[in-house]
Amino acid sequence: MWLRVSCNLAFDIETPTPFILMLRPRSGAEQWIERDEFKTYPNLPIIEFTDDYGNLCQRLVAPLGRFTLFTSSDVRTSEFVDVNFDAPFVEIQNLPNDVLCYLLPSRYCESDRFNDLANTITADQPVGYKQVFAIEEWLRTNISYIPGSSDFPISATEVNYKRSGVCRDLSHLGIALCRSLSIPARMVVGYLHKLHPMDMHAWFEAYVGGRWYTFDATQTGQKGGYVAVGYGLDAADVALFNQFGPVAHSLEQRVTVKQIKI
Amino acid sequence: MWLRVSCNLAFDIETPTPFILMLRPRSGAEQWIERDEFKTYPNLPIIEFTDDYGNLCQRLVAPLGRFTLFTSSDVRTSEFVDVNFDAPFVEIQNLPNDVLCYLLPSRYCESDRFNDLANTITADQPVGYKQVFAIEEWLRTNISYIPGSSDFPISATEVNYKRSGVCRDLSHLGIALCRSLSIPARMVVGYLHKLHPMDMHAWFEAYVGGRWYTFDATQTGQKGGYVAVGYGLDAADVALFNQFGPVAHSLEQRVTVKQIKI
Amino acid sequence: MWLRVSCNLAFDIETPTPFILMLRPRSGAEQWIERDEFKTYPNLPIIEFTDDYGNLCQRLVAPLGRFTLFTSSDVRTSEFVDVNFDAPFVEIQNLPNDVLCYLLPSRYCESDRFNDLANTITADQPVGYKQVFAIEEWLRTNISYIPGSSDFPISATEVNYKRSGVCRDLSHLGIALCRSLSIPARMVVGYLHKLHPMDMHAWFEAYVGGRWYTFDATQTGQKGGYVAVGYGLDAADVALFNQFGPVAHSLEQRVTVKQIKI
Amino acid sequence: MWLRVSCNLAFDIETPTPFILMLRPRSGAEQWIERDEFKTYPNLPIIEFTDDYGNLCQRLVAPLGRFTLFTSSDVRTSEFVDVNFDAPFVEIQNLPNDVLCYLLPSRYCESDRFNDLANTITADQPVGYKQVFAIEEWLRTNISYIPGSSDFPISATEVNYKRSGVCRDLSHLGIALCRSLSIPARMVVGYLHKLHPMDMHAWFEAYVGGRWYTFDATQTGQKGGYVAVGYGLDAADVALFNQFGPVAHSLEQRVTVKQIKI
Repeated sequence: MWLRVSCNLAFDIETPTPFILMLRPRSGAEQWIERDEFKTYPNLPIIEFTDDYGNLCQRLVAPLGRFTLFTSSDVRTSEFVDVNFDAPFVEIQNLPNDVLCYLLPSRYCESDRFNDLANTITADQPVGYKQVFAIEEWLRTNISYIPGSSDFPISATEVNYKRSGVCRDLSHLGIALCRSLSIPARMVVGYLHKLHPMDMHAWFEAYVGGRWYTFDATQTGQKGGYVAVGYGLDAADVALFNQFGPVAHSLEQRVTVKQIKI
Repeated sequence: MWLRVSCNLAFDIETPTPFILMLRPRSGAEQWIERDEFKTYPNLPIIEFTDDYGNLCQRLVAPLGRFTLFTSSDVRTSEFVDVNFDAPFVEIQNLPNDVLCYLLPSRYCESDRFNDLANTITADQPVGYKQVFAIEEWLRTNISYIPGSSDFPISATEVNYKRSGVCRDLSHLGIALCRSLSIPARMVVGYLHKLHPMDMHAWFEAYVGGRWYTFDATQTGQKGGYVAVGYGLDAADVALFNQFGPVAHSLEQRVTVKQIKI
Repeated sequence: MWLRVSCNLAFDIETPTPFILMLRPRSGAEQWIERDEFKTYPNLPIIEFTDDYGNLCQRLVAPLGRFTLFTSSDVRTSEFVDVNFDAPFVEIQNLPNDVLCYLLPSRYCESDRFNDLANTITADQPVGYKQVFAIEEWLRTNISYIPGSSDFPISATEVNYKRSGVCRDLSHLGIALCRSLSIPARMVVGYLHKLHPMDMHAWFEAYVGGRWYTFDATQTGQKGGYVAVGYGLDAADVALFNQFGPVAHSLEQRVTVKQIKI
Repeated sequence: MWLRVSCNLAFDIETPTPFILMLRPRSGAEQWIERDEFKTYPNLPIIEFTDDYGNLCQRLVAPLGRFTLFTSSDVRTSEFVDVNFDAPFVEIQNLPNDVLCYLLPSRYCESDRFNDLANTITADQPVGYKQVFAIEEWLRTNISYIPGSSDFPISATEVNYKRSGVCRDLSHLGIALCRSLSIPARMVVGYLHKLHPMDMHAWFEAYVGGRWYTFDATQTGQKGGYVAVGYGLDAADVALFNQFGPVAHSLEQRVTVKQIKI
């Protein structure tokens, strides 16, 4: 399916503020970017670079006054994400080198402290995809998904204690549980068709059966229409924008996703 | 200045043909891509990757029949390229690691065989930018620039013998001469505002004074409005399209560059 | 000065165990590896790769029984680390792209929660090296360095609460404090000449004045003789060995550092 | 088998001369470096870096007078290189991204001009390994291998005309022929056990059946005991040493390879 995704951000800047942005999706294994636009008002010098996870990032210094950012892309993506209950666990020694880092604990995914819970949740499952699916189901049942309930990232331990959270929080706990079972898992932020309420979204991927599969504990039923904007170990790596200095709160964050072709 | 650049290619494909394309400009030190489009007819699975020189490439297999490609970008670039006659030669030991490869001879730039000529051309020059400028002037004076005079790349040795060539040929000879003086030099292909006749273009860059400078022996007077699409050692690395199997000649290659904003 | 550094590890393996090792130092800006040895008993297939931080890593599967690892290197390193009280803070917009990741919070360095403490500690300091020096001094005064007091990594928040720790713990807190001031900081593990008691060591580096400087709150007086083995965001990235599956405790970890030439 | 390989180089330096060296083998898919040594006399500041092909390189400036370099490594490598006559041709669209560059023509391998000859040589062969084997056989029969017959690299076209050459020359022609058939091929320099006369050696690899295979038209019978030091498109990328400025001829180049363990 073809989606047109866009994001508008507006800030009121009181002192010149360096930003690092991650809002420009790239073509990848699961998506193709046919058209792409990235505009700022006022027009500014922008430096674009690719980070260690392959994300396209932009650096700029926002000047005093109203600062607005507009991005838009036309993307081909799957109508349904791939599902494969038979995808087996990959032995550590057979993982590709560049997947190994997704086994490590990270800022918001303290996987070194979730071994018992993960074993309990997946006790009856064969190793691999079905373990991750059991984790996804457990999150859906045990952690309430409450969009807009949190402003800043909290860690998997905190989410597990609080028993509710935003999409980012459920992903963090899912990732921590996977990694504690030696299943590589990573955070994804981006767009989701028909997300309600519409906003930027977060989900996670787990590496089983020799590739990455998509999991999203905030949704039920057949899912698709995902557009990835950033990948990382957790929310620390995939902030849509990092600003430095006195905080400039966003006045507006408007996200749209609409289908433009089959 | 802001340019809208676009390229249309059309092929008549007689057997399914793998293509590797390099027609999507990236944001970089000297240019910012605000809008970008890349379309094929028919619509096809496309894999995008970044090559060793940082160029954005697309892989696809063109099916039987008419195959059309359309790319378009809105780009901010300099109205005049930087000129710095005082930029000094950089001693080998002070070159950045990733610039060293641009000292090596390559397919179409046999720099290992141009030392005498390069020394003659630059005999009276201080080492650095002025050497490269002398080379550019020498090319302008000694090698006739005849657009459309050649279909496939020939090497610097052959260009020097033939005494005429297309933009690619003059660049190859310029690069070979620079490298023979231990000045890193690289090939650039892309768009040039007001190029006549309009087409894709090629020029070269030399590394002096700690950065890359643009040189183009096919143009005179103050120059600017360049949009780089690919960088490499020479034309072997920066083919706009590589096709494999029976040659599918392009039916059409239509290039436009127009200024859209100051 | 020239140091011969070596590390012996021995394990009793009860089930075939995948290991990822990080015990082979590389030549770098501050050190040159003239000789290097890496042996296992029994002899095993080993795959070597370079991780995202540039560390040399080895992968292997240890078989049943006694598994021993021996590494040794002859290294040229500085007798005294560089100190520069005038090195200024680098504005975010001027940091190199590949340094930006060291501003992010990480598993054991929750820099997003240390802004107040960091501001208090560095209240009277000009921005840059002197801020980091004040943090180092504060750690030395406020957090007791107790070698061998901890088996597994705890986070900066926990270290700050506990008020004591091993070298790794002091580094984590130092890094978290630096990052909360927008100073890039990273973890280093390796060898230190004359460390007492001798063992593998951990310290941190901060990026000020356009380069990385070494800081080590566990030592006093003029310092030098450091040999870096691994760099990363924190201990999660620079484990000397990661093992997977049932834990195989090390029977022995013997480290030696001796000076072999001036 | 385990080999101890070493290389001694001596130069008489008349003006301080920048060198880039490629004489330190790395662990890789086919070899494991257990011990390694790299010494210069006099002792000098050396910067080590990894080039675009993954080769370990050293940069230094040799001072006036006698300059000596000594490298030595203990390496585990195969007693016989892998042979697989059934390894099929890999369609362009299925080649890994990082293998594509080995399809391009390069300085000494003008593959764009060998299509007819390659088709003639491989006329009766199924596509894949057997094509490359036919090329290797053709080289063995048609191009005389005369060690020491050439000081500087010549290109495949020149080799084909001359009908004789050193190991490097036969490799260049082999590579050009493979690439003209859309089979990725690359140059390797390194050590070979029992090479006669003993010296540094060059051979080539071709990518068929999803991996690289070793070919060496200078040897007959079952072969093994190869230790790779550098990989590249051709000799331009894998010079054992590049020096800049007035040529400092090597006074001595002594190479030894001996078996130390089974």
